Amino acid sequence: MQAEIIAVGTELLLGDIVNTNAPWISKKLAALGIDVYHHITVGDNPARIQSVIQQALDRADILIFTGGLGPTEDDLTIATIADYFNAALIEDPASVEAIKAFFIARGIEHTSNNLKQALKPQDAQTIENPIGTAPGIAWDVSSYLSELNSESNDQLHDELAKRTSLILTFPGVPRELYAMWPASEAFIKQQMEKQGLQSQMLTIRFLHFFGIGESKVALELADLMDGQNPTVAPYVGRSEVRIRIAAKASNEADALALIEPIKKQAIERLKPFYFAEGKTTDDVNIEAIVADILKDKKLTVSVAESCTGGLVSSRLTDVPGSSQYTSLNVVTYSNHQKEQLLNVCPEDLKNYGAVSPQIASTMAQNILKISNCDVGLALTGLAGPDGGSDEKPIGLLYLALTGLNQTIVKKILVNPNYPRTDIKYWFSQYALHYLRQYLQGTLQTDN
Amino acid sequence: MQAEIIAVGTELLLGDIVNTNAPWISKKLAALGIDVYHHITVGDNPARIQSVIQQALDRADILIFTGGLGPTEDDLTIATIADYFNAALIEDPASVEAIKAFFIARGIEHTSNNLKQALKPQDAQTIENPIGTAPGIAWDVSSYLSELNSESNDQLHDELAKRTSLILTFPGVPRELYAMWPASEAFIKQQMEKQGLQSQMLTIRFLHFFGIGESKVALELADLMDGQNPTVAPYVGRSEVRIRIAAKASNEADALALIEPIKKQAIERLKPFYFAEGKTTDDVNIEAIVADILKDKKLTVSVAESCTGGLVSSRLTDVPGSSQYTSLNVVTYSNHQKEQLLNVCPEDLKNYGAVSPQIASTMAQNILKISNCDVGLALTGLAGPDGGSDEKPIGLLYLALTGLNQTIVKKILVNPNYPRTDIKYWFSQYALHYLRQYLQGTLQTDN
Repeated sequence: MQAEIIAVGTELLLGDIVNTNAPWISKKLAALGIDVYHHITVGDNPARIQSVIQQALDRADILIFTGGLGPTEDDLTIATIADYFNAALIEDPASVEAIKAFFIARGIEHTSNNLKQALKPQDAQTIENPIGTAPGIAWDVSSYLSELNSESNDQLHDELAKRTSLILTFPGVPRELYAMWPASEAFIKQQMEKQGLQSQMLTIRFLHFFGIGESKVALELADLMDGQNPTVAPYVGRSEVRIRIAAKASNEADALALIEPIKKQAIERLKPFYFAEGKTTDDVNIEAIVADILKDKKLTVSVAESCTGGLVSSRLTDVPGSSQYTSLNVVTYSNHQKEQLLNVCPEDLKNYGAVSPQIASTMAQNILKISNCDVGLALTGLAGPDGGSDEKPIGLLYLALTGLNQTIVKKILVNPNYPRTDIKYWFSQYALHYLRQYLQGTLQTDN
Repeated sequence: MQAEIIAVGTELLLGDIVNTNAPWISKKLAALGIDVYHHITVGDNPARIQSVIQQALDRADILIFTGGLGPTEDDLTIATIADYFNAALIEDPASVEAIKAFFIARGIEHTSNNLKQALKPQDAQTIENPIGTAPGIAWDVSSYLSELNSESNDQLHDELAKRTSLILTFPGVPRELYAMWPASEAFIKQQMEKQGLQSQMLTIRFLHFFGIGESKVALELADLMDGQNPTVAPYVGRSEVRIRIAAKASNEADALALIEPIKKQAIERLKPFYFAEGKTTDDVNIEAIVADILKDKKLTVSVAESCTGGLVSSRLTDVPGSSQYTSLNVVTYSNHQKEQLLNVCPEDLKNYGAVSPQIASTMAQNILKISNCDVGLALTGLAGPDGGSDEKPIGLLYLALTGLNQTIVKKILVNPNYPRTDIKYWFSQYALHYLRQYLQGTLQTDN
């Protein structure tokens, strides 16, 4: 069963708004076992919207529209779909009441154009919008077939009759879509039943790796990527690589049973680099992993930053309850402050320079003393765009860790062509990953 | 002149990645006066990609592909376009060298699949990728017409011959696209010249306001929003509202002349809230504005943070050259460290609590002394999700500023239902805006 997601809105084509609805709906459909082969964005133009409808009906069973349900003149989605099917629109009394109540609750009068949002085809069912004025509509395409101009659409007519397609229209405002989605799933499931389909679950697991490139991962796991169920694919993150393992089955347990052996193999082959498993692309973050280890081992950490300017500290405190494991972090941005606050020796600064393993090491050792915590972490490097040299290029970072056994210093090189904020982020990413390895006792000194 | 933007990647259709490239490219094209009528997303499937190519060639002059240029087997964009045109691919020697150099600079060996990224049609020109291994390709469609199967594509053939279409292929990684774009604009301009088009400039200006809501702005500027050229529309940002003024004309000077009177009116009506003008949605950031004021006035700032955990410090140092105006920032996350490092009186902590105007004020005054800078900024608040009370709810922030004349303390309330990281971001946003106003002498004390 295939669905096509169609966003309507000239503002999307002008680039003023990012279409986050299409990926959100895609995930929901994937979980129901419905394939999505196309996302389309089209402007507020009836002819182009109609041509998109025609094409989508030709290749998909469910069309999901977002946008163009507003009260203004350039909101055309409902009227254009109705035109396409030669379907008359009537004012839905329940929607009229809901719209009036919406405005009364806010102590303001509705305007006449708001009632445009209550229009729907006679037989179509509405999807209630609990937080806005534009209800959704579920269009059962088979009801409109008799109205379709059969001369020009003969072939499509037959196709549609077979497919009994469904069209769902939603507002473009993401939070309204989210609030309306649960009610709309009933229509989708009805549609699946009509076509004799059991809802198939797509279950997904992500494996996260650090310290290895995408192409290396792809080579190591090449044979696993040939499979059809589960499918295996690599994804690149910043300083991380993820493997997505996705299995289809009638229930989650069966899908997980398909995923399990692939997962084991992948982890076994890339063991030194593996660090976490997740269920979505973004439910694993290194901040939370470090936080869990620190809480678990009842350890505290203190950070002395230079080039990253507080980013490592900020990320460490993005996790709820971070006061359990960090209480003092400092940003010593000048040599003077490194001397004043961290007792870095002026001679050393002169001899080695602020960006050096020696200074990183001293900063880590002294923030440990000052803060009286368990682990000291220090970063000194060059985030650019100015200040690089042949010997010490932009993108160079020295990172030191101390407190548990030995002091370990790592040298890191990040692409100097990245923007400054990206270089800072990569630096912080390395800092958190090396902190994790240090806490786990797996961090190796550079040779 | 029309362009169509086509994103290739099954991960987009699964909803694992949000397509931010399409809006980014749309803006760039709008600025060149090129219309975009469709955004398409299609999976890593040759047949479906070919059908999208065919349709797009049929209605657009420029096709811009993003994604599917990676080293792995499911990266199909180049091979599929080449197949469509029956064009042979060769290894581009310059790209091979660039790829090898990329890996050598990182001290690792390239793998054989990396060289796949050096493949291009004999006559096509490459677009250099300064930060990744996949170069872009500019495909002059007229070169491939003789190769096209003329039987099945007769009509298209004639159309293409008229249009001399251009295809540009880019990697899906946004920062690589951004780095490659400037070089690719030359191909687009050539294309416009070939078609005898002068680029009609869409010129845009954004006005940025702080401290006023979107609906208030819309009311105040309602009459200005009725115009057709320029068009005026409000946009909401985090703690900011923007007005987009867009004018079309044959050259930038004429467009700016249309924009100017509207701009003046808008700024005049909303003067107390206006703080900056930009050319794109994201070229104005409060960090950079604060940095400019500090550099201009030769002032330095030092930040003592609690709830924001270093985020304000990190944002202040996101600006190149930030060592000119900040040298020491601290994160005192516990009461103990507030006492130790910032000499906050234990009695005060007991009497007023850490989240109080008194503690914010002391923190600001003492970081000023310790750092020996011109302006002290301190934040203490509740970022949640735990630890709120009726008296001191999640989302409460006290922010203190000192050093220039009087100490000013501001109380801020942010929506407690936001996630922790969002609350931190809003807090930092207020801190930077109030710092701006403090530096400019326009910050008012709360009554």
